[in-house]
Amino acid sequence: MTAIKELGEFKLIDKLMEGFEIKNESTKLSVGDDCAVLDYKNKQTLVTKDLLLEGVHFDLTYCPLMHLGYKSAIVNFSDVYAMNGKPKQMIVGLGVSKRFDVEDMQELYAGMKLACDKYGVDLVGGDTTASLTGLTISITCIGEAEEGKISKRSGAKDTDLICVTGDLGAAYMGLLLLEREKKVFDKGGDDEPDFAGKEYLIERQLKPEARKDIIEALERINVVPTSMMDVSDGLSSELLHICKASGVGCRIYEDRIPIDYLTAQMSEDFKLNPTMAALNGGEDYELLFTVPLSMFDVFSQLNNPKVTIIGHITDASLGAKIISSDGGEHDITAQGWNSLAE
Amino acid sequence: MTAIKELGEFKLIDKLMEGFEIKNESTKLSVGDDCAVLDYKNKQTLVTKDLLLEGVHFDLTYCPLMHLGYKSAIVNFSDVYAMNGKPKQMIVGLGVSKRFDVEDMQELYAGMKLACDKYGVDLVGGDTTASLTGLTISITCIGEAEEGKISKRSGAKDTDLICVTGDLGAAYMGLLLLEREKKVFDKGGDDEPDFAGKEYLIERQLKPEARKDIIEALERINVVPTSMMDVSDGLSSELLHICKASGVGCRIYEDRIPIDYLTAQMSEDFKLNPTMAALNGGEDYELLFTVPLSMFDVFSQLNNPKVTIIGHITDASLGAKIISSDGGEHDITAQGWNSLAE
Repeated sequence: MTAIKELGEFKLIDKLMEGFEIKNESTKLSVGDDCAVLDYKNKQTLVTKDLLLEGVHFDLTYCPLMHLGYKSAIVNFSDVYAMNGKPKQMIVGLGVSKRFDVEDMQELYAGMKLACDKYGVDLVGGDTTASLTGLTISITCIGEAEEGKISKRSGAKDTDLICVTGDLGAAYMGLLLLEREKKVFDKGGDDEPDFAGKEYLIERQLKPEARKDIIEALERINVVPTSMMDVSDGLSSELLHICKASGVGCRIYEDRIPIDYLTAQMSEDFKLNPTMAALNGGEDYELLFTVPLSMFDVFSQLNNPKVTIIGHITDASLGAKIISSDGGEHDITAQGWNSLAE
Repeated sequence: MTAIKELGEFKLIDKLMEGFEIKNESTKLSVGDDCAVLDYKNKQTLVTKDLLLEGVHFDLTYCPLMHLGYKSAIVNFSDVYAMNGKPKQMIVGLGVSKRFDVEDMQELYAGMKLACDKYGVDLVGGDTTASLTGLTISITCIGEAEEGKISKRSGAKDTDLICVTGDLGAAYMGLLLLEREKKVFDKGGDDEPDFAGKEYLIERQLKPEARKDIIEALERINVVPTSMMDVSDGLSSELLHICKASGVGCRIYEDRIPIDYLTAQMSEDFKLNPTMAALNGGEDYELLFTVPLSMFDVFSQLNNPKVTIIGHITDASLGAKIISSDGGEHDITAQGWNSLAE
């Protein structure tokens, strides 16, 4: 165990950067100067940022530091893919309290390195500082996209198909499971948590992936979604963002929402409606996008990677609605995770 | 007074962004999507990040929120100028505890807007979230630079002149003054703090500026510094960074270090050596740069903006030295502010 104060900021950064290699031609200058230098030539530049605070966004009781490093990178990559772009560089701001030692930070960075290697992203800079309480992680991701091929939230048109990748609600079920086991542990239960058969839910929560494969598949079939977002706050919240930004309405069908068998099963255990987990759970990091109706044949048959058509865009006057399995029509309301709301 | 939870994240962002306007052609898409979209055409892209944590980097007892907003933007702009670039966009990550209300955040953003307006920077995105304790500010600044005209830390050559802009040590004296008055206040002293005649020192600490004027002056006289940094941790620390990155030594002269009369006077009050304040105080946000010896005539006469030649670069074998006023030669050691060191 090495205390961080023994190294100081600059030696700590040197140590954490060991093993990171530059993979992208667009990275002209990396860690070690006042700025990183990038050159995207004729491509456009995408920039996104996520701030993760201990106790608000993660709980180190059940989230290992390596997983946290991985996830904090992934959630940023996901935002770049959600514009139909490709993440290329990231910068890490770290606030560290005295509770953490050098080895802890190395674990966190090992997770980031795994993510960077898998997604082809360069870690090009950062700012590492002391914090009075807990761990603060601020990541900025920079990516590239071709002009005219960027999918914003604002491009959805009446009659467009609404598509979603993978399945929804599993990350939320994973969180509920982890919280339940934590409570057992806090009460002095000495049983090891039993997640047998539920690994998928835990993994969706602790080690999500970003949908690089979808962006590559869209490129192969030469489709640019008219609008796109990643599902981080919950399907409802993201749908409403697209409707608002595009000035349209939408109609989705409850029985079309892709929900994994395990998610449905766990929902039952928790006496929850699995549709509500999918609509409001969040942290799935799947892609929600719209394409013209003429794409129906392509997308209704897309199984690898899996894409599901869950409904269509309507005129704004028709509102944002979900048709439940019993045929009832309900307003979509955002009850997704919002750390600042009541 | 409006509680932040009454608005929630998205309405808060809408409110905070009121009055911000896009000023740069390179800003293609701003706040409101998964990413901001930038287009720097044939320019290169600079990226820098600073993380500011309450209790570590700022003390709200004496730092008004508007000043804090201004300063947190400026320290990032300064990093971009330090590469011989121009800041164009910034992204703000904010972690806010329940202690703060909507009006507090509006004050903070008013300060950022002042900085953005003065320096021609667009605020293009961010992430706003709850925090358990205190205020967390994470700013990423993106800027542009011409290929071949970027000044890194690594380009200083033997015999180059070492130049520094403005004067050094005043921000540190301002901090000592503020801390002294805070102690009086904490002890129940009911006198208003008396900063009469010392406004310059207080302003250097609470409302620093970035040296846009220097970068513009260098452009006018068509000079690209061989190396450059901004003085944020202290002159000693920055000189050692340049020497290490460039593989050179340096020799600076104590009596050449530009120190304002007020800084010298306050140092005496505090029984401190003003040279030590300049070498190790930090937060001056002046530029330290090197230029070829042939530039001597140009830079020895540069008074507006003020630039002082404080020494020259040497072979690495000669080490990094300061020649004191009495002619003695001393090693330069970094004792600058380092939140992670002992």
